[in-house]
Amino acid sequence: MKIAVINGANINFTGIREPHIYGSQTLDEINRQISAEGKSMGVDLFFFHSNLEGEIINLLQRCCLEKFDGIIINPGAFSHYSYAIRDAVAGLPMPVIEVHMSNTQAREDFRRLSVIAPVCRGQINGFGLHGYTLAIRAIIKMKGAM
Amino acid sequence: MKIAVINGANINFTGIREPHIYGSQTLDEINRQISAEGKSMGVDLFFFHSNLEGEIINLLQRCCLEKFDGIIINPGAFSHYSYAIRDAVAGLPMPVIEVHMSNTQAREDFRRLSVIAPVCRGQINGFGLHGYTLAIRAIIKMKGAM
Amino acid sequence: MKIAVINGANINFTGIREPHIYGSQTLDEINRQISAEGKSMGVDLFFFHSNLEGEIINLLQRCCLEKFDGIIINPGAFSHYSYAIRDAVAGLPMPVIEVHMSNTQAREDFRRLSVIAPVCRGQINGFGLHGYTLAIRAIIKMKGAM
Amino acid sequence: MKIAVINGANINFTGIREPHIYGSQTLDEINRQISAEGKSMGVDLFFFHSNLEGEIINLLQRCCLEKFDGIIINPGAFSHYSYAIRDAVAGLPMPVIEVHMSNTQAREDFRRLSVIAPVCRGQINGFGLHGYTLAIRAIIKMKGAM
Amino acid sequence: MKIAVINGANINFTGIREPHIYGSQTLDEINRQISAEGKSMGVDLFFFHSNLEGEIINLLQRCCLEKFDGIIINPGAFSHYSYAIRDAVAGLPMPVIEVHMSNTQAREDFRRLSVIAPVCRGQINGFGLHGYTLAIRAIIKMKGAM
Amino acid sequence: MKIAVINGANINFTGIREPHIYGSQTLDEINRQISAEGKSMGVDLFFFHSNLEGEIINLLQRCCLEKFDGIIINPGAFSHYSYAIRDAVAGLPMPVIEVHMSNTQAREDFRRLSVIAPVCRGQINGFGLHGYTLAIRAIIKMKGAM
Amino acid sequence: MKIAVINGANINFTGIREPHIYGSQTLDEINRQISAEGKSMGVDLFFFHSNLEGEIINLLQRCCLEKFDGIIINPGAFSHYSYAIRDAVAGLPMPVIEVHMSNTQAREDFRRLSVIAPVCRGQINGFGLHGYTLAIRAIIKMKGAM
Amino acid sequence: MKIAVINGANINFTGIREPHIYGSQTLDEINRQISAEGKSMGVDLFFFHSNLEGEIINLLQRCCLEKFDGIIINPGAFSHYSYAIRDAVAGLPMPVIEVHMSNTQAREDFRRLSVIAPVCRGQINGFGLHGYTLAIRAIIKMKGAM
Amino acid sequence: MKIAVINGANINFTGIREPHIYGSQTLDEINRQISAEGKSMGVDLFFFHSNLEGEIINLLQRCCLEKFDGIIINPGAFSHYSYAIRDAVAGLPMPVIEVHMSNTQAREDFRRLSVIAPVCRGQINGFGLHGYTLAIRAIIKMKGAM
Amino acid sequence: MKIAVINGANINFTGIREPHIYGSQTLDEINRQISAEGKSMGVDLFFFHSNLEGEIINLLQRCCLEKFDGIIINPGAFSHYSYAIRDAVAGLPMPVIEVHMSNTQAREDFRRLSVIAPVCRGQINGFGLHGYTLAIRAIIKMKGAM
Amino acid sequence: MKIAVINGANINFTGIREPHIYGSQTLDEINRQISAEGKSMGVDLFFFHSNLEGEIINLLQRCCLEKFDGIIINPGAFSHYSYAIRDAVAGLPMPVIEVHMSNTQAREDFRRLSVIAPVCRGQINGFGLHGYTLAIRAIIKMKGAM
Amino acid sequence: MKIAVINGANINFTGIREPHIYGSQTLDEINRQISAEGKSMGVDLFFFHSNLEGEIINLLQRCCLEKFDGIIINPGAFSHYSYAIRDAVAGLPMPVIEVHMSNTQAREDFRRLSVIAPVCRGQINGFGLHGYTLAIRAIIKMKGAM
Repeated sequence: MKIAVINGANINFTGIREPHIYGSQTLDEINRQISAEGKSMGVDLFFFHSNLEGEIINLLQRCCLEKFDGIIINPGAFSHYSYAIRDAVAGLPMPVIEVHMSNTQAREDFRRLSVIAPVCRGQINGFGLHGYTLAIRAIIKMKGAM
Repeated sequence: MKIAVINGANINFTGIREPHIYGSQTLDEINRQISAEGKSMGVDLFFFHSNLEGEIINLLQRCCLEKFDGIIINPGAFSHYSYAIRDAVAGLPMPVIEVHMSNTQAREDFRRLSVIAPVCRGQINGFGLHGYTLAIRAIIKMKGAM
Repeated sequence: MKIAVINGANINFTGIREPHIYGSQTLDEINRQISAEGKSMGVDLFFFHSNLEGEIINLLQRCCLEKFDGIIINPGAFSHYSYAIRDAVAGLPMPVIEVHMSNTQAREDFRRLSVIAPVCRGQINGFGLHGYTLAIRAIIKMKGAM
Repeated sequence: MKIAVINGANINFTGIREPHIYGSQTLDEINRQISAEGKSMGVDLFFFHSNLEGEIINLLQRCCLEKFDGIIINPGAFSHYSYAIRDAVAGLPMPVIEVHMSNTQAREDFRRLSVIAPVCRGQINGFGLHGYTLAIRAIIKMKGAM
Repeated sequence: MKIAVINGANINFTGIREPHIYGSQTLDEINRQISAEGKSMGVDLFFFHSNLEGEIINLLQRCCLEKFDGIIINPGAFSHYSYAIRDAVAGLPMPVIEVHMSNTQAREDFRRLSVIAPVCRGQINGFGLHGYTLAIRAIIKMKGAM
Repeated sequence: MKIAVINGANINFTGIREPHIYGSQTLDEINRQISAEGKSMGVDLFFFHSNLEGEIINLLQRCCLEKFDGIIINPGAFSHYSYAIRDAVAGLPMPVIEVHMSNTQAREDFRRLSVIAPVCRGQINGFGLHGYTLAIRAIIKMKGAM
Repeated sequence: MKIAVINGANINFTGIREPHIYGSQTLDEINRQISAEGKSMGVDLFFFHSNLEGEIINLLQRCCLEKFDGIIINPGAFSHYSYAIRDAVAGLPMPVIEVHMSNTQAREDFRRLSVIAPVCRGQINGFGLHGYTLAIRAIIKMKGAM
Repeated sequence: MKIAVINGANINFTGIREPHIYGSQTLDEINRQISAEGKSMGVDLFFFHSNLEGEIINLLQRCCLEKFDGIIINPGAFSHYSYAIRDAVAGLPMPVIEVHMSNTQAREDFRRLSVIAPVCRGQINGFGLHGYTLAIRAIIKMKGAM
Repeated sequence: MKIAVINGANINFTGIREPHIYGSQTLDEINRQISAEGKSMGVDLFFFHSNLEGEIINLLQRCCLEKFDGIIINPGAFSHYSYAIRDAVAGLPMPVIEVHMSNTQAREDFRRLSVIAPVCRGQINGFGLHGYTLAIRAIIKMKGAM
Repeated sequence: MKIAVINGANINFTGIREPHIYGSQTLDEINRQISAEGKSMGVDLFFFHSNLEGEIINLLQRCCLEKFDGIIINPGAFSHYSYAIRDAVAGLPMPVIEVHMSNTQAREDFRRLSVIAPVCRGQINGFGLHGYTLAIRAIIKMKGAM
Repeated sequence: MKIAVINGANINFTGIREPHIYGSQTLDEINRQISAEGKSMGVDLFFFHSNLEGEIINLLQRCCLEKFDGIIINPGAFSHYSYAIRDAVAGLPMPVIEVHMSNTQAREDFRRLSVIAPVCRGQINGFGLHGYTLAIRAIIKMKGAM
Repeated sequence: MKIAVINGANINFTGIREPHIYGSQTLDEINRQISAEGKSMGVDLFFFHSNLEGEIINLLQRCCLEKFDGIIINPGAFSHYSYAIRDAVAGLPMPVIEVHMSNTQAREDFRRLSVIAPVCRGQINGFGLHGYTLAIRAIIKMKGAM
């Protein structure tokens, strides 16, 4: 089973910017830890990141063509206005899960609504890097593989 | 480790009402399955349900006094207007996670915002009964016990 | 044919509070008069009342299990915010009719929208106690029994 | 007792347009059936229809001058913006009841509010052609004639 | 100098409907009084009325073609939504003045804004029939004829 | 192939009112030019106009009964509030295209939304009289006739 | 008969600021012309001006105590937010008329609503200095003195 | 003189939850102190509490039937959405005063408006437990007994 | 202990304007009565009034420099828009209490929110002149002096 | 005559994603068909696509420098929030036409407004790939070349 | 070159109120420092302050008559509602710059919009007293004098 | 001292598009002039531009890693919706100043709010290219270096 993890705007600065919100681990460290947990569940993870909205769309299209089994996406702030990413997700045949490391419901008002969430299968917010591994597990369960 | 699972309005009719949205398992069947998974993770689960908003508050206060390690709450439709439940959650010392079985972001507009979410630790939406077991795992991870 | 009449918040104070809006008959007198009219149409009426939102939900679930042929509900002020009652109604197989004794459209702004109405079969507003007997007749007509 | 039944925009196409919403009987068939039921209740019904908002106003003024005992109005889509019809209704001495054949609360958002309803005596929505006969009965009851 | 007085929805029922708001003079009596005052100022008045929005537009177009020196319009409730009348007024070369007999600012919220007012030369509200004669005087002054 | 061209409020004053917005050709001249272009495409055009909203509805119903192959409608300002015309269009079996000669998106705010557009097959705005001939072509293409 | 003319914020700069909106006469010249017209109608006018909202309130209270027969007020931009002036006007026993020299309905959005208008007897907008003399006439007519 | 003190959602957790907002005294301690102060003013206080909205309504109805001289209500978060409690208060003959221990105007936006306040006699916010004794005094003063 | 009582717009007309809302005592009579009650509680009261927003700010600054122990402010209609007074209050070290004699929650919509309230210590509304003496008592209690 | 066709977000997935909305032809097939039709009208078409908003801007700037005769843009979901593309279009000297293949007015609410449309010459929505060829024709007509 | 510096509500309390927002220098100290910097740039500065909105208007009119070369205005909280000051600024021939010492965009929501800014030449926010000297420099640059 | 100047969408077309708004100097000419002025103040300026939102984020991250002393950003239209750029700015340790060459407050409504401004140190709008040099000076002053 292969799952893509796509991180959007500013996630590559995790551990550098605002550690009181996002923790002090870097994205590389986070990815290594998630990768290991994924492996223990029999899942191959592929990590992508871009600060460019359009490249996120390109990545989603590529994942579609390469027939991934599931996609975990943390769009960062794109969540709140990128109808273009929403449209890219809407057409995908595999389950897509939106993950946010912080609890977006407990921050500024503009973070309360994601325009992408309505076309995802589900959301997981507020559990730091654990959100990603919970999402892996959710995809496995939806696939009936565990 | 003991965790409370509190279900609110109409969750007791799961499996009876609108199976195309909520699935066809009854709440009892769901609870049994979650309970088993919880046990396998070393967690004792205590299940509560009420269709009365105020009893949910009473339950939350009782969980506070009985020093539960975590609370998983599916408030049902109370999510969208019960500032009273919000206030009851706001004062709790243990992590509280909001779970919805359906993807609330893909349904009517009024379901997009939860007034309770901002005072919870996180949210998990859209994974059916698996949302509860993912929430157990999230609490364990936050407690550093796994 | 058996039909449930469920009255919500403050309806039990009809005849006591604000008679210029709701008339001076008590709920008991109203129920007796409706009951008689129902009988003359060959319908057995069962009257329920609660000031507790959650008990209204319990009543609706009970009516579902006891296979009533129709439900007439006057939710009182719950109409304007109880998404929980809305969800309870949404799952019911028999016709549910929302009745208000006063003309809710001619009063305060917040009374203009009912969050329950969209999941009912129809609404009857503004005819005092006659609203209930018109609703009985509407159910009979929908059942093709008259 | 004589009652006017005034139908507004597009009601004359009932049975022709969108039968899944409005049923497959034509307005003529509906009127004949209502007329018969009215007669059985001792009421003479007079049917009017126009697709022109201003003619509806003319009809309302004529009903006023001809001292009808009651008016049943289905304004169609005029309900949602015709403050001119509202003003015409506001000045009438006899009871006016707004009827909609479909359940306007379960359709598009713009149909949820009627600008005419606040100056009517009551509303009946969602019962197809039966809405008209229920309205006749409501007028009779308000007149104390039954 | 010739000036048109165009009255819209329900103005023909002045003196009949709601005299506590609009006074007890009929439109005919009002027109006769205005006509006399106009004559004393050297102005020929032409009175038009329709309850049909589209006929108001036809009247405005006719006044344009017949080169009236000014137009006084009391659109009644059309003021609050008829963008069609607004467009008809927008193209006129002579001054158009909006008059309301009642003080529209002291009534329901929906009466506070006129969609026609922004394309008129001015407004006069709240002075009963005197509003018309004040408007005549305003046109005369704007024409520099007095 | 026969197509109806229905023009609404104030379109008959094109070339007379506000030529800087609508151009200086009269509606007759426009219709003659469109008619010729239609003929060259093998289409018989039938031109209708009314400043009365209700007559537009009557025209739409007549086109329905007379089985036109397509309808091109320029509702003028009715676009922005006539839910009655919307309902008349909604029930039609042939393609209906909304055309505006000016670019409604570049003018006042209230012109940005058409309540009729959601029930049409498409919209063409901003190309003066050419909008009509483009619409003819669009209908032909949709019919697969060209 | 004595009438007060109270001018608010920036009216003293008429003829100096933005002559394309307010004309090129100074306030003194305007007052002299109005005064003469008032005298010809048998009215003594008293002119007041202040750029201070609170002094406008003081002036209104003084006019109340000195038993003026009517008040003409041009509050300038205070119209759009001064609930304090509104309250001062609300308590007055004599007719108060709001006058604006420009057509406030044809300018910026914030000028469309006056918070003072609902407690005045009427409004006259868009006729330059003539607005004041029309208002005098309106007061005379309301007093039945002409 | 007998006065009821009715506390709503979560007030029973005062002193336990969020002491930085609500202080560290328990509800029992608060009630004892208020009771003593009431006694010194010659008033018998009766204390009620419920976390159930509907029981608050029951309590209000009971206070009505038992002819209390006044009611002091701290609805907690019910203030912000319980139209049902509002209706229960609206029909009461004795003065009802809304009290909040914290300054609700200095907290989250949703706390700024109480739907119950418009049908109370007055509000007292922000003075901790002293709010209750000030309310007692207010009732006494309104009764002219002090 | 010395406390300032600052009254804003139109409060000096209490007893003169709208006695059905504000009672028939003049401000002088009210102040004398409050002063006496204050004295009996060992408090020296200093009364200020202005209809000018800016003078209210000057008064608040003076009270700050003269180290008053508390301030009671009834801003009148300034409450609803004077962010300038709000800023003046925000910087004060002593408790400031907002008082309104009428129940502002039961009147026009614009009176429901005070922009000053969020920076005060508390509010007291609806008790006529007693509001001032309750506020004195509240300050005393907060100072621990009673 | 040379015209640029610029397609934005996700248009390259046409024929792949959601064929029930966008049809089953791929973008390449569509472009070939349009190109052929363009050629038959004497127009050279140049096709561009990007999923990156900023590259769309770069393309628009390049088209400006290379003096294209017209631009047809289908911004996809960028239409609904990209003020940056809007600004890029606003400065262009040649006609720009916004095209959408689906009828954006008949889908989700957020698709009803395009922030780019107000600075285009016109819009064509709802005709699938034919929208592009209609736009070519529109440009030709505006250039007076046909 | 002579420039006026006009400070509005509460600016005279800078250094006294809320030093964490506005710094601890008094207005006198600030003015002396700005004055010195102005002199070094060859500019004579004239300082004005008032807590009264209307006096700000008087000052602006005076600066107009005395032909200042530029005006720097810090309206304080008047920025957010004083349409009267806006109108006073709108008519001025010299450049007017709005300055705020704090970053108004990073504070309460109501501070985000200034109703005065749209009629100024520019804004400078967030640089403490340096904002004033930057504004001087901006005026010099716009005058081409540096 | 080294400062980055980052220009966003369409700024590279300054001098080419809409010179009546942005002036006729090209970005290169502007940069050269700013660079010279910066040098005269002892500041090394580094100029960046991109039309791609995501590259702006990359640039901000690079400036962070390369420890610039300050950043001047003109995001162009990204200001009004790019929460992603906002997040990138929010985490930066050095002062960031938002600059707009035109007065954004005097243009379209959507330009009035910048979602980036709340996380910047300050804003400078409306002074053409001088805005950049004023911003340099502001950074120098904040650093205490001048």
